[in-house]
Amino acid sequence: MSKQFEKKDWQDSMRVRFDFNNMMTSYVGESGINESEIADMELQIEKAEKAMKEKRANGGMDWRELPYNQTEVVKDINEYVNSVKDEFETFVVLGIGGSALGPIAVQQAINHPYYNELSKEKRGGYPKLYVMDNIDPEKLVSLFDIVDLETTLFNVITKSGSTSETMSQFMIIKEILEEKLGEKAKKHIVCTTDAKNGNLRPIADKEGYKSFIIPAGVGGRFSELTPVGLLPAAMCGIDIEQLLAGAAYMDELCKTDNTFKNPASMYAILNYLGMKKGKNISVVMPYTDSLKYIGDWYAQLWAESLGKKYDNEGKVVNVGQTPVRALGATDQHSQVQLYAEGPKDKVIVFVGVNNYKTSLTIPNIYSDIPSLGFLGGATHNKLIQTEQMATEYALLKAGQSNMTITLPEVNEFTLGQLLYLFEVATGFAGELLNINAFDQPGVEEGKNATYAMFGRPGYEEKKEELDKRPEKNDKYII
Amino acid sequence: MSKQFEKKDWQDSMRVRFDFNNMMTSYVGESGINESEIADMELQIEKAEKAMKEKRANGGMDWRELPYNQTEVVKDINEYVNSVKDEFETFVVLGIGGSALGPIAVQQAINHPYYNELSKEKRGGYPKLYVMDNIDPEKLVSLFDIVDLETTLFNVITKSGSTSETMSQFMIIKEILEEKLGEKAKKHIVCTTDAKNGNLRPIADKEGYKSFIIPAGVGGRFSELTPVGLLPAAMCGIDIEQLLAGAAYMDELCKTDNTFKNPASMYAILNYLGMKKGKNISVVMPYTDSLKYIGDWYAQLWAESLGKKYDNEGKVVNVGQTPVRALGATDQHSQVQLYAEGPKDKVIVFVGVNNYKTSLTIPNIYSDIPSLGFLGGATHNKLIQTEQMATEYALLKAGQSNMTITLPEVNEFTLGQLLYLFEVATGFAGELLNINAFDQPGVEEGKNATYAMFGRPGYEEKKEELDKRPEKNDKYII
Repeated sequence: MSKQFEKKDWQDSMRVRFDFNNMMTSYVGESGINESEIADMELQIEKAEKAMKEKRANGGMDWRELPYNQTEVVKDINEYVNSVKDEFETFVVLGIGGSALGPIAVQQAINHPYYNELSKEKRGGYPKLYVMDNIDPEKLVSLFDIVDLETTLFNVITKSGSTSETMSQFMIIKEILEEKLGEKAKKHIVCTTDAKNGNLRPIADKEGYKSFIIPAGVGGRFSELTPVGLLPAAMCGIDIEQLLAGAAYMDELCKTDNTFKNPASMYAILNYLGMKKGKNISVVMPYTDSLKYIGDWYAQLWAESLGKKYDNEGKVVNVGQTPVRALGATDQHSQVQLYAEGPKDKVIVFVGVNNYKTSLTIPNIYSDIPSLGFLGGATHNKLIQTEQMATEYALLKAGQSNMTITLPEVNEFTLGQLLYLFEVATGFAGELLNINAFDQPGVEEGKNATYAMFGRPGYEEKKEELDKRPEKNDKYII
Repeated sequence: MSKQFEKKDWQDSMRVRFDFNNMMTSYVGESGINESEIADMELQIEKAEKAMKEKRANGGMDWRELPYNQTEVVKDINEYVNSVKDEFETFVVLGIGGSALGPIAVQQAINHPYYNELSKEKRGGYPKLYVMDNIDPEKLVSLFDIVDLETTLFNVITKSGSTSETMSQFMIIKEILEEKLGEKAKKHIVCTTDAKNGNLRPIADKEGYKSFIIPAGVGGRFSELTPVGLLPAAMCGIDIEQLLAGAAYMDELCKTDNTFKNPASMYAILNYLGMKKGKNISVVMPYTDSLKYIGDWYAQLWAESLGKKYDNEGKVVNVGQTPVRALGATDQHSQVQLYAEGPKDKVIVFVGVNNYKTSLTIPNIYSDIPSLGFLGGATHNKLIQTEQMATEYALLKAGQSNMTITLPEVNEFTLGQLLYLFEVATGFAGELLNINAFDQPGVEEGKNATYAMFGRPGYEEKKEELDKRPEKNDKYII
């Protein structure tokens, strides 16, 4: 047997599965979806498949090639990590949106939940990780209370180098580092940005900062598998080759035109049909703390890609499903009352795990108390998995549509699959909705208003517009 | 001037304000609310006000008295904290839902963002705080990697003592502590539970655990201002008297029958009218990391209280607005594209801060680069506040309804106001919807299914029902 086949065997045992039984009318009842509705979409699905293939072939979806074209990038990252990890106790990402959500999600998924509180030895010799994804002054000032700048490496992540939040953080950090460390400051900054364009590239070149490239054709929310996500992951000892291998494995699964065998297409179709039926909310509810922040990453991907005013013909459509981040079993005590009894306005996506990284047994010490006795001798693993099944059942019975994605275990390979699955599904949903899933025109208005309020040259007209906005009515302020 | 008047003066400068201009048609356009619609609700509002007063008078809303009737409780808590804080390096809450969300939110709001990573001296001599609000085995096992049980105090919080998640954690911890510490183990456990009923009270009495009382008439999601929240807060050096004083101050503001002067009633009315217009999503978006977890606490309060199948007459209504937790400015790079261009299905609640706890100036080092130069010399404080205003403006222009709650600064007194405001608003919204905001019947099905799957005696019938559920169709699993 060839090496490749051996590898395939191992990978299949780590395949992520997608179960959508509870989306179908035959299971969930009238709020569900009929197979005939999917059949009726045949032409629309074919058109979407064609568009996806064309975009991929014509360089309109460069993120799809990331699992394949980064051998050199991975090598460069791993070499850099190995050359600096002993020097630095702390690695700080300066980034926001797509430059922060992926790094946080992957770190939380793979590493120890209290990673930053472990000794460097227990962290495998890798630095701590902090992600500064906001401009709340309290957060950054507080960081200085707990890190030693002499052993801290800052990773500035912005493709354009004009992201106000990230660049202002960089400007503050640069000044502080230079004051404190002089010439040595430049070794404490590493940039992840465009190869040629934008503000940060010339700054990095001039200052002599080490830098990594965000490929020109890859947008922020699809950039986790570029150095945006790969560098912070590798810096914390995460196997980035396996992340990419997982993505490649999922890519194979998503290539088929057999809709009922394609997890990404089917995820998109079911949510699309859900939206048509008024299900304007997409809940992602992992049953493990390790995947909690996948919900945040997904929230950007799904919201920013599909929340659009115009369709591809320029017609006003105002579409988009609002992502909601939940966590099982925790949110059974917070959100499930609403999911069970509230409106049928949701598609709920459970994300389960077959094997947790550890096991914990409940001692049999209260066998005489009925509401505690049944727990004795069971594991927390069994309890959380049973609660997941029970919640799935309760929501099914209540007529609330749900589906379940299951990871055999949470590791780099399964995580790579999950990320890539959601990305392809998002692209496909964009095609079904006939919108551009890869732009974000709606954030310009707020940016321009910020510039105008700051008196930035060139925004005088917007300033005039702002000055003309109606005065607030005191009657409407309590 | 009497002492009381002096106090009032100070408090008024710390008053939380509620601005709903951008909810009104005259500002946000056709997706907004007309004053005439509020006028048309006159009878409904009067009925709701009357019901609220009657419930309060008849002991149906005991949580409303918490700001006034806990002098002894506060004294007991503070004495206990002072007697144990030197012995313990770590304080761990075992709780879920209402027993976890409040403690997390208050800690994050008031204390240092990296509190657990500060030295004990920098923590003011108070222990670290961890909240174990899930049964993911990885989380609890990992906790043992970073805490020393000899200096760890566990706070078991459950009113009924039958919450499977919390009690199973307690059983595990109890056994481990007793194995390791023998007789001394009992000093490492403090219980917060009902005065008389449930499983935990007799256990606490038998074992000789220190315990605090959750008043019988206060439900989980309204319990933050009982020892559920007050003990963890005081244990981390938070001024719980000021929390309660803030709640009392807000109570005064919420007593008026003048709708346009009552922030809680108005918050409820505007969301109620929003729901009627298809706004089934309630986004809470604070512009400070310190209030991030207020969104999680609110999500339980609003979802579990208002997500109901039946109205008070037993009619099937399936009402409820789905809470979404966002964070400014971070989520401008994740969710705001959707908020600006997607469906008009949301009420967005900005939570702003006039004065942050610190200030951070951006150096003027790139005056030659237009997209960076305008930032030089400004503070991060100004940047985040400007971005909030700009986003408010952009969403207004896009026709997306929004309102703004502003805290003069984040401290115990303003936080107490905010918590109490949301609680009263939730109660009032329940009256307008004509549902019971204080029960959670929808979580029973999932609990019973869990018991049945575990083979708990008494759940044989449910087990039979589960065994009869349709087999999953392999065609619907990819």
